[in-house]
Amino acid sequence: MERFNIAIVGATGFVGQEFISILEQRRFPVGKLRPLASERSSGTEIFFRHRPFEVQEAFSETFHDIDIAFFSAGADVSRQLCPIAAKAGAVVIDNSATFRLEPSVPLVVPEVNPEDINQHNGIIANPNCSTIQLVVALYPLHKVNPIKRVIISTYQAVSGAGFAAANELTRETKLVLEGRSVCPHAFAHQIAFNVLPEIDVFLDNGYTKEEWKMTEETRKIMHAPDIAASATCVRVPVWFGHSEAVNVEFTSPISAKEARKILDQSPGIKVLDDPSVSHYPYPWAVTGSNHVFVGRIREDISGPNGLVMWIVADNLRKGAALNAVQIAEEGIKRGWIASKRSVVA
Amino acid sequence: MERFNIAIVGATGFVGQEFISILEQRRFPVGKLRPLASERSSGTEIFFRHRPFEVQEAFSETFHDIDIAFFSAGADVSRQLCPIAAKAGAVVIDNSATFRLEPSVPLVVPEVNPEDINQHNGIIANPNCSTIQLVVALYPLHKVNPIKRVIISTYQAVSGAGFAAANELTRETKLVLEGRSVCPHAFAHQIAFNVLPEIDVFLDNGYTKEEWKMTEETRKIMHAPDIAASATCVRVPVWFGHSEAVNVEFTSPISAKEARKILDQSPGIKVLDDPSVSHYPYPWAVTGSNHVFVGRIREDISGPNGLVMWIVADNLRKGAALNAVQIAEEGIKRGWIASKRSVVA
Repeated sequence: MERFNIAIVGATGFVGQEFISILEQRRFPVGKLRPLASERSSGTEIFFRHRPFEVQEAFSETFHDIDIAFFSAGADVSRQLCPIAAKAGAVVIDNSATFRLEPSVPLVVPEVNPEDINQHNGIIANPNCSTIQLVVALYPLHKVNPIKRVIISTYQAVSGAGFAAANELTRETKLVLEGRSVCPHAFAHQIAFNVLPEIDVFLDNGYTKEEWKMTEETRKIMHAPDIAASATCVRVPVWFGHSEAVNVEFTSPISAKEARKILDQSPGIKVLDDPSVSHYPYPWAVTGSNHVFVGRIREDISGPNGLVMWIVADNLRKGAALNAVQIAEEGIKRGWIASKRSVVA
Repeated sequence: MERFNIAIVGATGFVGQEFISILEQRRFPVGKLRPLASERSSGTEIFFRHRPFEVQEAFSETFHDIDIAFFSAGADVSRQLCPIAAKAGAVVIDNSATFRLEPSVPLVVPEVNPEDINQHNGIIANPNCSTIQLVVALYPLHKVNPIKRVIISTYQAVSGAGFAAANELTRETKLVLEGRSVCPHAFAHQIAFNVLPEIDVFLDNGYTKEEWKMTEETRKIMHAPDIAASATCVRVPVWFGHSEAVNVEFTSPISAKEARKILDQSPGIKVLDDPSVSHYPYPWAVTGSNHVFVGRIREDISGPNGLVMWIVADNLRKGAALNAVQIAEEGIKRGWIASKRSVVA
């Protein structure tokens, strides 16, 4: 059986740890495993299949024998090291926003555009967490009834901003329960018992970069440059799991029943939709799951050809590490990603 | 100076306590104050202007000398006692959903439709919390550029569901921090570190009653039966303060700058909108405030003539008690609500 030498850059972060757990759970054919991180985290130990691995500092030279390099260490690291890893012959699957909108870099959600993997020149971009779960749910509907416009409001977990942000929610929550005041670091304002409509930096048009990403990445992944989309991205005091309230306008009418049936038969999706027993997805329940969960599907009373739905997924899994691993699996299955040994042989 | 005998039905609840505090803060010309509640809460003491008042059980006979009766004790109590109080000569301002959509009952937000107060036949309805803050922000824009469609996603505080619900958030939060599991009562599922897209009961069309109220009440208050509106109402782990992400489609183009200027000069509104310093409203900061706060105002990139904004207000004040007191104040100022003594005199 072909095995692949894997590097995980950012191995000690939230997404890095999901990578380890997902590679293990899915019995990914790992040859060498090389967990990498910044100087600060190097020397720490992580466990893979019950064996300890020492985390090393990521250098240019680290990638010479690597087949697949998963990057999740922030934009600066990706900008610097992804091209080096690719040049050394690794297929890079990068979780940062750095290369996502570059025309020469495929931006892939395997349920939507697996064929794009084949276009890679060493780097494949993993989309934004909120965008992945959105397009998994939109695409099966778009295929039968082209989407014209999407309006999204998100309810995003703090883990999307990393360890420090998740710890900040925990710390602030305890302080508030003790009647004490808080001093925010990871977020601009208190996040405990609060919601903040600010994710990533603000652009000149008043949207945040996170909101803009949802528009641009959705179009690129779905090969639908004409879809109009507007998002409001909001951080909520939830550790794991992003939720989205979505109004979709189609070309022609579509019933909630029809949409439910299509989604139910589509890859990567679970429909949880029985209001009579309060059955709908919510972030606490989807943590650790691999699916994109859809509920509250209804015909939009405010316009023709419209549907409203509620989409929830684990932002660290399908929103990040899982999607990247699925890209690798799909590339391997289709023969577009190969191990160096098999190339040499 | 004319003084008014006031009954507060539901005086021991969240909204009831806000009534007491608001009447005090605004130096409302209170003659007699009669705090009323269910049998269970009768006998407890509340304080008004540093004097104790015993809470009595609400009976039919309680209203004979009352000028204004504020009701916030749930739909069942309102259905039973509002008509009795009105028949006894009190002007009833009811916070429940019971009478809101009855054609003979005015549904009033003083910044929007104060003239409707004059149409009352003893009962005036106070709108839904989420609707009040929405129409305060929409109406000044609608007057200069009629609104065609609104899409709303809410981030609603648990206090909107009463004391037990707010306590449930506190209790569950502590349990989760201790690594223990929770047993929800006030909500269908855990609310701590979670979000739930369910407020009020589900209707046949898949919307909840809360979502449907936002559509219907907005139309009635603004006298704009043709506005199309769709809401998704979501409970978030916040004690106080409702937030709303809103996409508005107008008849003709409107710039964010223009909207900001109009809102800035409109009654009851404060614009907080400077992304460069993370300046926008959020629920933790608006608790105890009387204004509706608007921020994140931007032109909608997904369609012509559109604006997106973020609206936050204290759900117990402008969303409930304050708006009811303002209805009374407006009615008194315009001579549409009078004290019985002045009528007799």
